[in-house]
Amino acid sequence: MAFIDDRLAMPSRYGDSYAEAVEHGVRAVKLDLVPVITAMGLATSHLGLGATYSTTYYSPFHVARVFASLDHFTSGRAAWNVVTSLNDSEAHNFGVSEHLEHDDRYDMADEFMDAAGALWDSWDDGAVIADRDEERFADSSKVRRADYEGQHLSSRGPLTVPRSPQGHPVIIQAGQSGRGRQFAARWGEMLFVIFPTPEGCKAYRDDLRARAVAVGRDPNSIKVAPAVYAVVGETEQEAADKLAYIDGLARPVDSLALLSEVFNYDFAQHLPDEPLSDEVMASMTGLRGFLDRVIQLSGNPNPSLNDFIKWSGRGTLREFPTFNGTPAQVADQMEAWFGSESCDGFVLAATHMPGAYEDFAHLVVPELQRRGLFRREYVPGTLRDNLGLARPMRM
Amino acid sequence: MAFIDDRLAMPSRYGDSYAEAVEHGVRAVKLDLVPVITAMGLATSHLGLGATYSTTYYSPFHVARVFASLDHFTSGRAAWNVVTSLNDSEAHNFGVSEHLEHDDRYDMADEFMDAAGALWDSWDDGAVIADRDEERFADSSKVRRADYEGQHLSSRGPLTVPRSPQGHPVIIQAGQSGRGRQFAARWGEMLFVIFPTPEGCKAYRDDLRARAVAVGRDPNSIKVAPAVYAVVGETEQEAADKLAYIDGLARPVDSLALLSEVFNYDFAQHLPDEPLSDEVMASMTGLRGFLDRVIQLSGNPNPSLNDFIKWSGRGTLREFPTFNGTPAQVADQMEAWFGSESCDGFVLAATHMPGAYEDFAHLVVPELQRRGLFRREYVPGTLRDNLGLARPMRM
Repeated sequence: MAFIDDRLAMPSRYGDSYAEAVEHGVRAVKLDLVPVITAMGLATSHLGLGATYSTTYYSPFHVARVFASLDHFTSGRAAWNVVTSLNDSEAHNFGVSEHLEHDDRYDMADEFMDAAGALWDSWDDGAVIADRDEERFADSSKVRRADYEGQHLSSRGPLTVPRSPQGHPVIIQAGQSGRGRQFAARWGEMLFVIFPTPEGCKAYRDDLRARAVAVGRDPNSIKVAPAVYAVVGETEQEAADKLAYIDGLARPVDSLALLSEVFNYDFAQHLPDEPLSDEVMASMTGLRGFLDRVIQLSGNPNPSLNDFIKWSGRGTLREFPTFNGTPAQVADQMEAWFGSESCDGFVLAATHMPGAYEDFAHLVVPELQRRGLFRREYVPGTLRDNLGLARPMRM
Repeated sequence: MAFIDDRLAMPSRYGDSYAEAVEHGVRAVKLDLVPVITAMGLATSHLGLGATYSTTYYSPFHVARVFASLDHFTSGRAAWNVVTSLNDSEAHNFGVSEHLEHDDRYDMADEFMDAAGALWDSWDDGAVIADRDEERFADSSKVRRADYEGQHLSSRGPLTVPRSPQGHPVIIQAGQSGRGRQFAARWGEMLFVIFPTPEGCKAYRDDLRARAVAVGRDPNSIKVAPAVYAVVGETEQEAADKLAYIDGLARPVDSLALLSEVFNYDFAQHLPDEPLSDEVMASMTGLRGFLDRVIQLSGNPNPSLNDFIKWSGRGTLREFPTFNGTPAQVADQMEAWFGSESCDGFVLAATHMPGAYEDFAHLVVPELQRRGLFRREYVPGTLRDNLGLARPMRM
């Protein structure tokens, strides 16, 4: 499966300006993902296709309709990366002056998922008859209103799209902090996470599987996939040279621009070595998981900008674990994570494009296939079939 | 250009039920149009592609981003049919309990267009440099915030999509009633209208061109295209038989279901011959143009359901003028409208699919080409170039 991130604003918290993002191409361009995913779907036959869409600035009816349409268009290969939008840059683009607190965002996102699920379930399989002689398009007894009424959101339905091949798109989720974990355990199917070590990832996976059981889910309905980089060469020397070259391209100011977005805080206000006060730390409303990580890895409850750059790794190869070496060495490192039940798979981030995915496909995949760790062909059917995820029953 | 309508709910005003719509396929299925338009764009090279998107339930940032993305994906062939959403079925799907009054909807739509325009104009042509050696992605002096602040809507920007081939998508608009005309004259480029006679359409076109001049636009920047049906046969007899067959397929109850949506009023409350009271007429919040037409054509200020079915023609061939006959006869009728300066082109509605467009392309288009009334090849460039519409300057 290919899945693509999104952001509803270019980075502009850092120094209250978008100039850095535009000049250096730091997430400055983000197309709407629906045309992107549609085009990729039409050019491929088996690839799963995940698009990020926010629960904060769209309506459940719109998002449910978009993903049901995409799932029909791709014959059951659509996945939705569910995110809550978190920063002022995005809020300003959508004419919202205040953003919800971290936990409130997740409460609203729970409602969003309930509403979307009820809309996807508003048509049964087989409702469409299309019988010209009987003058019947569909069986109205197999169609129902969603009638979802929440505190924040409501939608009546029925959806204007018959039930799609997968029933619901595969749900991708990245919740890693307290409330985020609860959300991920309830809704997530493919969990995109960031952990520097297999031990941390295993603890998360064990916790999420236990939480899933606690809310009545099969623990195997959750697949944990940590983000990793792979820098591979035909020889060790070539791989090491590539790594050094790529590593040298990172610019600290790009990291700060990206971190200012993640934490919804303008880092340009501080000197590089200044420890951030408790008050400043508390004011950061963005991704808590990232913040916990910087504090933990730096061993410093009041980290400086340099700590943030170094330990978050944001915008550098240190952001995710980097598997480096020959194809066999990279496969060894992946096998070490996978074999220890730290994960069910990986999200392979691109160090560069084009090139990173081509290298991986040509050099590492054959090695993984030799070891019996990577599929040789797709299972016939949908993305769910290929991920070993059940098709949702109507709720 | 192909353009596709939309509705954000299936018809469910009539008898407060969606059953009629679902059973008989009366606009019951509406996919999101972005995958549809993308797929059509990838399968064609010259065809213009218009999608309907509402200003009522989406944000300007979202819609501006979607159409800028589509315009890039189709190399400058995207058009946006701007509609305001008007009925309770749609409002309930989006969790809105009340809908704005007719004129307020247009005030908000004006703001929407201002905001979208400012977002499209937030990148200049040529802003993207992509110079690897200089480490510059784009020239930030050619990118700016939109900083749009209206009464109802605001958006800061910049948009996350560089300026697209057409600058702005072609704007399709269908405003026909008082406030709607004012909106259409300000923003519309391709005006999709419904008139039973060329005289009515000419009066509209003259009025719109005058209104366009009054707001500082070139009158030729407005193209009026009335909706028409064409039922064509190789012989007169074949064409007449086809017309009778198609006409016999219409069901009055389908008309009432569609009319209940258009007027946001449940017609199931009345007997077929009962004149509707002034109070009932005043309570209809939907498409005023349709209502004016029924009153005018029936000569009855308090029309009955039968008057609505007959004179609105909704869901029947009488909804639009129907050109019927041999290819030469259909071409004659089109030429009569076109030659009298009643219109700049036509929106050819499908009487049936597949079949209606194939018949027209194979039988009528060659005749129109012989008469020099239809292009033999596309102009190189964008949809704007083919429609004779200027590329918008940055505002």
